[in-house]
Amino acid sequence: MSGLSSEEDDHISPKRQKLTKSEDTLAKLSHIDWKKLKQKKREEKRKWKEQKLLRKLERAKQQEVEESSKKEQEEEKERLKKVFGRSYSLSIALPGSILDNAQSPELRTYLAGQIARAAAVFNVDEIIIFDETGSINRSTEGEFHGVGKKGNANVQIARILQYLECPQYLRKCLFPQHKDLQYAGVLNPLDTPHHMKASDTCEYREGVVLDKPCKPGKGSYVNVGLLKEVQLDKQLQPGLRVTVKLNSSSPNKKLLKGQAVPPSEPSMYAGLYWGYSVRLARSLGAVFTECPYKDGYDLTIGTSDKGENVDEFVMSDFSHGLVVFGGLKGLEASLEADEALDVEDPSLLFHHYLNTCPKQGSGTIRTEEAILITMSALRPKLPQPQKSSPS
Amino acid sequence: MSGLSSEEDDHISPKRQKLTKSEDTLAKLSHIDWKKLKQKKREEKRKWKEQKLLRKLERAKQQEVEESSKKEQEEEKERLKKVFGRSYSLSIALPGSILDNAQSPELRTYLAGQIARAAAVFNVDEIIIFDETGSINRSTEGEFHGVGKKGNANVQIARILQYLECPQYLRKCLFPQHKDLQYAGVLNPLDTPHHMKASDTCEYREGVVLDKPCKPGKGSYVNVGLLKEVQLDKQLQPGLRVTVKLNSSSPNKKLLKGQAVPPSEPSMYAGLYWGYSVRLARSLGAVFTECPYKDGYDLTIGTSDKGENVDEFVMSDFSHGLVVFGGLKGLEASLEADEALDVEDPSLLFHHYLNTCPKQGSGTIRTEEAILITMSALRPKLPQPQKSSPS
Repeated sequence: MSGLSSEEDDHISPKRQKLTKSEDTLAKLSHIDWKKLKQKKREEKRKWKEQKLLRKLERAKQQEVEESSKKEQEEEKERLKKVFGRSYSLSIALPGSILDNAQSPELRTYLAGQIARAAAVFNVDEIIIFDETGSINRSTEGEFHGVGKKGNANVQIARILQYLECPQYLRKCLFPQHKDLQYAGVLNPLDTPHHMKASDTCEYREGVVLDKPCKPGKGSYVNVGLLKEVQLDKQLQPGLRVTVKLNSSSPNKKLLKGQAVPPSEPSMYAGLYWGYSVRLARSLGAVFTECPYKDGYDLTIGTSDKGENVDEFVMSDFSHGLVVFGGLKGLEASLEADEALDVEDPSLLFHHYLNTCPKQGSGTIRTEEAILITMSALRPKLPQPQKSSPS
Repeated sequence: MSGLSSEEDDHISPKRQKLTKSEDTLAKLSHIDWKKLKQKKREEKRKWKEQKLLRKLERAKQQEVEESSKKEQEEEKERLKKVFGRSYSLSIALPGSILDNAQSPELRTYLAGQIARAAAVFNVDEIIIFDETGSINRSTEGEFHGVGKKGNANVQIARILQYLECPQYLRKCLFPQHKDLQYAGVLNPLDTPHHMKASDTCEYREGVVLDKPCKPGKGSYVNVGLLKEVQLDKQLQPGLRVTVKLNSSSPNKKLLKGQAVPPSEPSMYAGLYWGYSVRLARSLGAVFTECPYKDGYDLTIGTSDKGENVDEFVMSDFSHGLVVFGGLKGLEASLEADEALDVEDPSLLFHHYLNTCPKQGSGTIRTEEAILITMSALRPKLPQPQKSSPS
């Protein structure tokens, strides 16, 4: 507070100028000084009031910015909660090169299946396969080298992950024969909620649009793994994979009807884990830079036996989490292979660099083991769902 | 406290009997009653003193028992600390039947290898393979059915576990060709401290006694995976697996010398994880009843998605911990197969029945996955080593 208060205004009111004679004399003696002082004080007061107003405006502005940022964050969390049934998304990244360490095409396939299972068990939303060798393939389209030791490990692991994520009844239609999938018979099923049998009853089902003529104005037919086909409300391109919400009519009816919905709806409204997406990254750096989420990953964890003890790690609140695993030679080797990343120490790449299995009895932990061990160690530290979240 | 105190002794002292005349008269009036009362009180007092002494003796006895039991527990912990480098042992149990779910002999072998790796990563001291089907084989000796789908899964998994635990350079000698080990080439190495290369330097090494003539009075020769053989101080039966402590002489010397030590010594004095033992149990019940530790397992945990949330589990101090995993159909099926166990609810078999992966995204968790997930979830809850433990 300034020494000048509003009470002092009264001190120089006209009433106070009606002074007695003796007082008047006294006043005259110090007249000039007093007048100057008053003027000075008024001046100071005006200035202070101006400053106060400015400060007030500034505060209001700042508050507004903070509120809007807070609101944005809340909105993002609400959006995530709707998409994933929780306030965050979870991604894992690993190098495709781990496949090259497998001893046979069957075991190569089996290993990719282990990664898919680990991701499904821990409700992972995105699996990123990054290249450690400098290859440039970024999608599963195009020419490939097949399934052998010389095949492209990144593309093969991505393809097998996509194949396993797809409900069994759609695979024949969506995954044409391919050398990468030659040993798919050895793969263990994911057993996720969106992998349904014909006898399972659920409002939502994954389907594929059939190439079957339908009357103009009427929607397309979709195979959703039931004995009967489902007629959609819209006409869609044949061969498209689509999430269908079945109309709650009696199953005895001649024709099942449904509508195409966003693939995020089952988790949004029914809280069901609805599989993961697969992304290929041309380098370790691209795992971060090509993030599909607008503001990137706001919690990144690197895993290494050289990291800090996971038991001492306190997880902060986050929207998009990413856990990165190294290959046979650890994240140190992945970093070395990335010419664009000008960092020597991998711990500088991540918010946290953790040893998720302190006092390990084996000198090495394989990547497929590390995913289960790490996700199990991190699980109790994940943000707990609020009671308002859809169940 | 009794109403009778030692002060009352003075009330009936001879001095007090020298009464005045009037007092004497008064005393005489109530003489008989008073005398009787005194006698009664004395009687009661004696009895009470006796009881007090008895109680005291009892307490002392009880304290002695408690102290000796406490001492015994402390001694056991000290012993364990010496054997395992920590104050507890850790065992896991699983049904051999999980092998029958594998799709090929290679994958059957690979699965057994996954179990061995999980045990090694988490410093497990004992792996118990129990039978879910009613077979009676209890050792890896005798006649077997080989590696195919029809082989004895329990014996095969036990044999592969033993094979993987054995240092590579001893396998040729200790594991003769066997159908169960036909696909051992696909197994990933355990990479434990006792699996050494010739170039590794360590005071301790696992070895096998060679069938090589040695002069009377001189000890046997042992292959410990070095270029040179080691001469022991004692003569031992050829073919025996033995833990050797090398004499700290220069490696350039013509002859390496060493002595046979208990297999527990490397962990006792060097804090090294020195592998696991394998036990076959004819039923789920035998896992408990045939425990190799004198007082049995004092912490038993059953794992099931029907168990309590592991996050709420507080681990008590223990000496011998056991974690039991179910097979394809869970511990419920293992229990049903055991005719001797008259329990319906598997949770009654264990001190704790835990769900170690709450909110799992997949409907099933395979046994080989469950071991990694569970041990990783339990690891931070394990007793922390005291600073006095050998490092």
